[in-house]
Amino acid sequence: MSVYLRDIPLVEAQNCLENALLEAGLSGYLGSEVISLDEKALNRVLAAPIWAKLSSPHYHASAMDGFAIRSIDSTDATDTNPINLIVSKKTVYVDTGDPLPDWADAVIPIEHTEPLDEDGQLSIHHRHPHAVRVRASYPPWRHVRPMGEDIVATQLVLAAGHTLRPYDLGAIAACGHSQVTVARRPIVGILPTGTELKPVGTPVKPGEIIEYNSMVLAAQINSWGGVAIRFPITDDVFENISERAILAAKECDLILINAGSSAGSEDFTAQVVESLGDLLVHGVAVRPGHPVIIGMIHQPGCVGGNVPVFGVPGYPVSAAMTAEIFIKPLIFKWLGKRKEKQQTLNATLTRKVTSPAGDDDFMRVVIGKVDEKVLAAPLSRGAGVITSLVQADGIVVLPRGVQGLPAGSPVDVRLLRSIHDLETTIFAIGSHDIILDVMAQYLAKSDRRLVSANVGSLAGLLALQRGESHLAGSHLLDPVTGLYNLKYIDQYLPQIPVQVITLVGRQQGLLVNAGNPQQIQGLADITRQNISFVNRQRGAGTRVLLDYHLKQLGIAPEDVRGYEHEEYTHLAVAAAVSSGRASCGLGIAAAATALGLDFIPLFSERYDLVIPTQHYQSDLLVPLIELLNNIEFRQLVSEMPGYDVSEMGRMVDKVT
Amino acid sequence: MSVYLRDIPLVEAQNCLENALLEAGLSGYLGSEVISLDEKALNRVLAAPIWAKLSSPHYHASAMDGFAIRSIDSTDATDTNPINLIVSKKTVYVDTGDPLPDWADAVIPIEHTEPLDEDGQLSIHHRHPHAVRVRASYPPWRHVRPMGEDIVATQLVLAAGHTLRPYDLGAIAACGHSQVTVARRPIVGILPTGTELKPVGTPVKPGEIIEYNSMVLAAQINSWGGVAIRFPITDDVFENISERAILAAKECDLILINAGSSAGSEDFTAQVVESLGDLLVHGVAVRPGHPVIIGMIHQPGCVGGNVPVFGVPGYPVSAAMTAEIFIKPLIFKWLGKRKEKQQTLNATLTRKVTSPAGDDDFMRVVIGKVDEKVLAAPLSRGAGVITSLVQADGIVVLPRGVQGLPAGSPVDVRLLRSIHDLETTIFAIGSHDIILDVMAQYLAKSDRRLVSANVGSLAGLLALQRGESHLAGSHLLDPVTGLYNLKYIDQYLPQIPVQVITLVGRQQGLLVNAGNPQQIQGLADITRQNISFVNRQRGAGTRVLLDYHLKQLGIAPEDVRGYEHEEYTHLAVAAAVSSGRASCGLGIAAAATALGLDFIPLFSERYDLVIPTQHYQSDLLVPLIELLNNIEFRQLVSEMPGYDVSEMGRMVDKVT
Repeated sequence: MSVYLRDIPLVEAQNCLENALLEAGLSGYLGSEVISLDEKALNRVLAAPIWAKLSSPHYHASAMDGFAIRSIDSTDATDTNPINLIVSKKTVYVDTGDPLPDWADAVIPIEHTEPLDEDGQLSIHHRHPHAVRVRASYPPWRHVRPMGEDIVATQLVLAAGHTLRPYDLGAIAACGHSQVTVARRPIVGILPTGTELKPVGTPVKPGEIIEYNSMVLAAQINSWGGVAIRFPITDDVFENISERAILAAKECDLILINAGSSAGSEDFTAQVVESLGDLLVHGVAVRPGHPVIIGMIHQPGCVGGNVPVFGVPGYPVSAAMTAEIFIKPLIFKWLGKRKEKQQTLNATLTRKVTSPAGDDDFMRVVIGKVDEKVLAAPLSRGAGVITSLVQADGIVVLPRGVQGLPAGSPVDVRLLRSIHDLETTIFAIGSHDIILDVMAQYLAKSDRRLVSANVGSLAGLLALQRGESHLAGSHLLDPVTGLYNLKYIDQYLPQIPVQVITLVGRQQGLLVNAGNPQQIQGLADITRQNISFVNRQRGAGTRVLLDYHLKQLGIAPEDVRGYEHEEYTHLAVAAAVSSGRASCGLGIAAAATALGLDFIPLFSERYDLVIPTQHYQSDLLVPLIELLNNIEFRQLVSEMPGYDVSEMGRMVDKVT
Repeated sequence: MSVYLRDIPLVEAQNCLENALLEAGLSGYLGSEVISLDEKALNRVLAAPIWAKLSSPHYHASAMDGFAIRSIDSTDATDTNPINLIVSKKTVYVDTGDPLPDWADAVIPIEHTEPLDEDGQLSIHHRHPHAVRVRASYPPWRHVRPMGEDIVATQLVLAAGHTLRPYDLGAIAACGHSQVTVARRPIVGILPTGTELKPVGTPVKPGEIIEYNSMVLAAQINSWGGVAIRFPITDDVFENISERAILAAKECDLILINAGSSAGSEDFTAQVVESLGDLLVHGVAVRPGHPVIIGMIHQPGCVGGNVPVFGVPGYPVSAAMTAEIFIKPLIFKWLGKRKEKQQTLNATLTRKVTSPAGDDDFMRVVIGKVDEKVLAAPLSRGAGVITSLVQADGIVVLPRGVQGLPAGSPVDVRLLRSIHDLETTIFAIGSHDIILDVMAQYLAKSDRRLVSANVGSLAGLLALQRGESHLAGSHLLDPVTGLYNLKYIDQYLPQIPVQVITLVGRQQGLLVNAGNPQQIQGLADITRQNISFVNRQRGAGTRVLLDYHLKQLGIAPEDVRGYEHEEYTHLAVAAAVSSGRASCGLGIAAAATALGLDFIPLFSERYDLVIPTQHYQSDLLVPLIELLNNIEFRQLVSEMPGYDVSEMGRMVDKVT
């Protein structure tokens, strides 16, 4: 077997699967079952149409509380010429839903009658008076629900392939059924394989991986209408995987082996599939995903003689996307369920992207609606970055043949969120501070989603300039005046009226390992031979701050080992120090505390929110502006290390 | 207690509920619980934010199968000047996901290496050669997933109030959690009450009602994130209802009593609520729904001391809508879940509607997208017509103060279906035939929804004229020429090019009770004194046919008892005969068979589909046109009584 894969195009892989299913007789309904009609039938898929057995109502029913009459008896009644109907065999009280007596053909609502006693005086017995006075005529069938008003026996109530909603259950009961024939839920066995895998909840050492793909796959499959069975983790031993696959094939309609689908030294999935049946596809040109295996197991005792099997790649994003692309349509087909077409939205790409020419590339994006512009900002493309799925508002497919798109390109986004979610999203592009995470947490309670893209202060101002965000966090020091932000705003946003509001004062300092083993005291130490530095990207406020102070100290960038090693957030800098990739970096105290590092305070600085006036005045931002005066929020922030909330919410005067 | 209700406005009722909840301390989170992180956590709502405990990856990991190296060792490699790296302590094979050795800072993918043996020849040991030849330099961290690439420990991964999706479970596991704190699911007790109620599956006599509201309510509540408990049916006895409510209050967070919420002679809900606590609201000005009760039970042993209680009206549409309006927001509030705002769509109302001025009126509509026009056609307004919810594509709210809207009014529709569903909907307005139901059933398999509004042949042509439908079923006889449809099309659709395609030939005849007890032989008999007739509405093809033959027989409409009794479908005519409301009616054989009636064949007629050419040529209608040539479909129709398929699919020549 080759150590490399040869990927085939997605369409080819789909056709190959379809043909194999056809040949195995697995291309349609998987089967049906009859279940009791109760609330557990919710979301099941009808495998047979519902034809009404009974009409609804199944008798002529009074539609009101009132008196059943013969309409002819009320013919001459008018407001000025009322008629008294003696309560008798031909005028009787009925409650709503009561059957109409044979002789009756109309109902007078009780509130349109005057109850009379035997003397013709108003009676206190509303429902059982001697007579009722009536001041209008009632045509036949007035206030009567005729038999079959809702459903006529034999009519089609629901078509096969329909997914049952709460109301549907009522309609099925109303027309006389107490059972429903629904599609059998496909049973999908998920086999996590890998000697390095550890179950959720087990402490992990380097090289060990928390096994959660099987949980994500199971949740996906259950939500699509299948029944997932998670098998225990199997070590990377050919015989063990093979044995478990044979076992699974005896009870499952479909098997997913995760992972070992690539061509590494411990990747056995393809061999296992080949040994148990047919290996149809090994490698599909999709990104993320490509080491996908498709096969068919034929073994004695197999469900139906043939069980389709997938080798699902191990990277979490690849695994989830492979399931979306291949497994979801298969389950829908087996359930006879109408295809779900995702809602799409036109958006404008915020930055250039590249894509391998041969792949169908499923790119995750966040969507910001700023004024009338809908913007799609690409998230991390890494197949291992599951937060790119968590944060994604949608998927943009870059089809095979497309090698990339420039910034500003129009794209179709397959939405993963509701339009409402997008319309209540505050899009912050700029400098990152942990306080933004805390704000997001608070704003969620006010029906606002705060999505922040961390690109640094300067890039944040540029995004405001392009109208691509609602606000920017910024802490840009002017080396000449020693003031924050205003000079940069004048320079980069001359045409855009903005409000500048202070979020926090915060300390910047050096992040070093606990106990400060290398005895770093200040910026002067970072040129020492045994010290490696981790920097922030160009345009970050922290980078400006560093450069300002390096210059003051007369230190040249080339004297700082690691000056070119750039990270995009304070936490990433802290992580670089914590992992030993660097000795120190400049950042905020909160990031140090977060990862158990020591913090050597050097400077204090002001972190402002820059908000275009038109957004500042919009309904969207009201909860965010209010939050700056929320006492509980201030208190919480003030307790975080290195923050000063004394100026929180202060409007920064632009003439300062 | 009054026998009538005094309705208060919806907003007032909502405020009253909100105040009572505040006072009882039930206006926020109901509580939280810690559950294991597995696929069963899907759709649960986070009651606390997820902060990362662990970075992901939690070590520097190889991103490829390949060789871990020190990047500095590859510095001088180029395509023409390759470097050989001896596989040793400083060049070792790693699989994807393996931890990077301490000394390494880059990975060369295996496919970019040439394995060499000790003689410098290509080796067959791809992963364990003596050396690898490298033809490019690898900068630090190339093909490495640095620690924290996905998640940095301490960062906010998910906010409280978030409903867990499959991917989220993965991210939570990835950052080191094995449990999650989620909102406790509110327990909702549903108490069906009514002596006339029978459980699903019990045969019913007139006056008895199949109890399915509790099932619909339970399904709604479960789908919103609550836990529904259905109690058995309680008879209309004050003490029994009271006793059961006390029982339910000991285990439930919320109680729904259904129904007895009106003011009829056997309506005890208000009294029960009053006797067990506070009756806050009795009657809300919403339609459907108005006899809604809101109260608070205070009883020893009550959950939390106070249990909110609703009297839910008995009509199925009222019950379901009351739950949507009051119970869903309450459950969301208790779960701390973000509000779900329904997607809305602008549409044009197809016909005039009226509404009580004092009510917020929730009108069910079907939506047809014809060309670029989005049309909202009101469904039955009856609170007992559950099929109006089943068929509804959306809800139009006619707010308090609005007494109605003329046809053509723009309305905002709250969508109950996806845009995709609407875009694949074929909107047929015209004459009804059971074959249309069968077609709907087939078309569902081809991702098409066939929605038919049954208004009769002529009204169907008028709808085509107004551009409000895709096709019309029509069987309009020209009394002069004896030909079908063409004259009417010329008259009513002179400007619109149409295709006329025969669906079926069918027999029209008299529908009479089984055994034909009144010995009706033909149209001449319907003037007999003891015979009552049920007619079709004006403009129906069957009505034209009747009038044509009555005229030929010299019978005046006033000589036919029941001539003015109009029904809108063949099945409704059959139901009128079957229920004894009429002795006979003119209709098709299938309707007679459906309800076990006898059929006296009189005439045969042609039933055509009239399709504007532009729709005929659209993708939308392709599956419908193809169906007319589907052998299985033809066979099925030919086996139905009274149908002739010999001309199915034939284009009717307009010059005929």
